Parts: sequence; C-alpha cells; structure tokens
Amino acid sequence: MERHLDVELKDLKDKLLLMGGSVESQLQDALQALTERDSDLAVRVVENDLSVNKLDVEIDENCLRLLALHQPTAGDLRFITTAMKISTELERMSDLAENIAERAIELNREPQLKPYIDIPRMGNWTSQMVKEALDAFVNRDAALARKVCKDDDVVDDLTEQLFRELVSFMLENPRTITRAIRLTFIGKYYERISDHATNVAELVVYMVEGKIIRHMSAEC
Amino acid sequence: MERHLDVELKDLKDKLLLMGGSVESQLQDALQALTERDSDLAVRVVENDLSVNKLDVEIDENCLRLLALHQPTAGDLRFITTAMKISTELERMSDLAENIAERAIELNREPQLKPYIDIPRMGNWTSQMVKEALDAFVNRDAALARKVCKDDDVVDDLTEQLFRELVSFMLENPRTITRAIRLTFIGKYYERISDHATNVAELVVYMVEGKIIRHMSAEC
Repeated sequence: MERHLDVELKDLKDKLLLMGGSVESQLQDALQALTERDSDLAVRVVENDLSVNKLDVEIDENCLRLLALHQPTAGDLRFITTAMKISTELERMSDLAENIAERAIELNREPQLKPYIDIPRMGNWTSQMVKEALDAFVNRDAALARKVCKDDDVVDDLTEQLFRELVSFMLENPRTITRAIRLTFIGKYYERISDHATNVAELVVYMVEGKIIRHMSAEC
Repeated sequence: MERHLDVELKDLKDKLLLMGGSVESQLQDALQALTERDSDLAVRVVENDLSVNKLDVEIDENCLRLLALHQPTAGDLRFITTAMKISTELERMSDLAENIAERAIELNREPQLKPYIDIPRMGNWTSQMVKEALDAFVNRDAALARKVCKDDDVVDDLTEQLFRELVSFMLENPRTITRAIRLTFIGKYYERISDHATNVAELVVYMVEGKIIRHMSAEC
C-alpha cells in the first residue's frame, strides 16, 4: 500500500513539472517573439509569468505543509527541500523569459539590426539545459545533471562572442547602439537562465547523492 | 530552561548574520575598488566570495540537520526554511559583488570615463537595503521589511537614469563604448542586488506573518 506521503510527493513532483513545462514554453515563445518579430506573442509571454508565479507560491505552500505534517527524514526531506528550491529557480527563469520578451517588443519597433544567429543558438541551448535539468530531476539522474552543469560553459562562450560582435557593430555605426545594447542584455539573460538551469542540476545531484556540489566547479 | 532547538536556532541565526556581514563588506569594498580605482581591493573581493560560498553550504547543511533531527513545526519550521532561502539570496549577492569587482578591474585599466555619481548612489542605497533586510530578519520586523521592498523602486529608477546617460556618452564618442557598457553592467548588477534584498525582505514578512507576499506588488 502506498504511503499517504508518497501520494503527496507525487503531486508535488507533478506540479513542479507543470511549472517546468510552462517555463519551457515561455522560453520558446520569447525566442520566437524575437526572431519572428511577433510582439503579440511577446505580450503573451509577459502575461504568462503570472501563472508561473502562482505555481511557485502553491509549491512553496505544499512543501511547507508536507514538512509540517509528515516530518519527513532522509530522502523525502531532501526531495521536498529540493523541490522548494527548484521552484524558486524556475520562477526566476520565467522572469528572465519575460525580460527577453520585453526587449523583443522594444527591438521589434525598429528595423532588425542583423540576422539573429547566436541568439537562437543560445536560446535553444538554454532551453535544452532546462529540459534536461528537469528530466534529471524526474529520473533522479545525477549523470544527466552533471552534463547540464558542463553545458553552462557553452552559453558563457556564446555570450562573450555575441558581446564582442555587438560592440563592433556599435563602433562601426553609433546608430545601432540602442539596439545592440538591448541584444547584449538578451545575451546576459540567456547566460542567467543557463546559470539557473545549472543550479537546478546541482540541486538534483544533491537530492540523489546527498552531496552539495555547488561552488565546487571541479565536481560538476 | 532553553530548549536544545533554541540554542541551535540561535547558532543558525548567528551564522546567517556572519554571512550577511561578509556580503555587506564585499559590497562596500567592490564599490570602493571602483570609485578609488583600487584593483588590489577588487581582487580581494573576488577571493572573499569563497568564504561566503562556504557559509552558504554550512547553513544549508545546518538547516537540513535541524529539519531532520527536530522535526520542527509552525514558527520554527518557517524560521529554518526562511534561513535556508536567505542564505541562497546572500550567496547570489556575493556573486554580484564579485562581478562588480571584475568589471572594476577592467575599468581601472583604462582612463576613467566620467566622475562616478549615480553608481556610488546605487551602491550605497543597495547596501542600505541589504543591511535593513537583515535587521528586519533579526528583529522580526515586518514593517522594516516592507520598507525595503519599496526602496527597490529607487534603484530601478537610478539604473534607468544611468543607462540613458551612458547611451548618450556612447553616441557622442564611440571610443567610450566598451567602458560605458561595463558601467551599464555594473548598474544592472546593483539592480539585481536590490532585487535579492527585496527577496530577503519578502521572506522576512513571510516568516513573521506567515503570509507569502512575493509576486504581489500591492502587498509590499
């Protein structure tokens, strides 16, 4: 017979995956809003942040209720505190998707500065990291989580490359400055989303192995 | 007679305050490294991040141990989960102080672009927010915590003002672009530190009143 706690833990996991799915959609939509210059879609991304925030609060309340009522220990305790923290990370990714959509709305009001090549690459790469970090969580897969941590370096390199390219645009033609800076910000947002995905992955390693690997780059 | 849990909760609080004090120093030093063009100090800020990371892991482990051993409920439970989350916020502020110091090192290699006026204002304002958020935590002062949330708007306005000023520098003289962008990034880092201080303040309101006010701007 299933313990009552197990049923509740499954509900918690499902809610977290629902939130994760919602954030993944927001990220894809924010990228599409930029590359296809679709500001209506960008507005929807901004609006959708509200439902993610709602899930964040619900998950937090669920976790506290589970801690108070069931006084879990060992693996269950780690699962619940990890869920609580993953929810915070997802909520911040959603804020960043909203920031990308806001910059897209501003950029879509002006002629496109350049064909977007690195940004879709960063967008797809970070979405993949988010997806894999959540898969690692669901399947308690520490190896996959460690892969996500490593993938973070690729996004850092792409951000640096984008930054250098945009500075050369600005130097050549000062009229591109405002647009180039907005694109630089988008690069930074992706860098941060990738950092949050890495945080999730580190939390998964902790949940599975009981080992805190954050702040230990050699471990991850 | 004091409960054993009370002694441990006091230790936890002291450790969190130690971490908070360390982050406050890092923020002050990072600002000074920039305004006084002191790159040696900037290097020390970067190095100091390690001790903050160590405290973050220790606090996390303490919290989990307390949850597992004492199975606390109600106020104690809220205190512990809040401490856990505040630690994460402080650790991210420390990362941002490190980012400011890194940009300061880069900026100090070139002639100073302009007298720094808004940036020290942002720096001092955010340091004050961090200090007050921690005071609110120690004294369980929800009113002070709510003030911190409101103060966040000032930093947002200063960031916007700084951004406009730096864009006008870049437009007038493209040779200022790289330095101006680094200063823009510093403005963004302060905006984020202020967001983290706000997160701490929201957590304090939750701890004191049992009411989640994040994502509800009207409440804070």
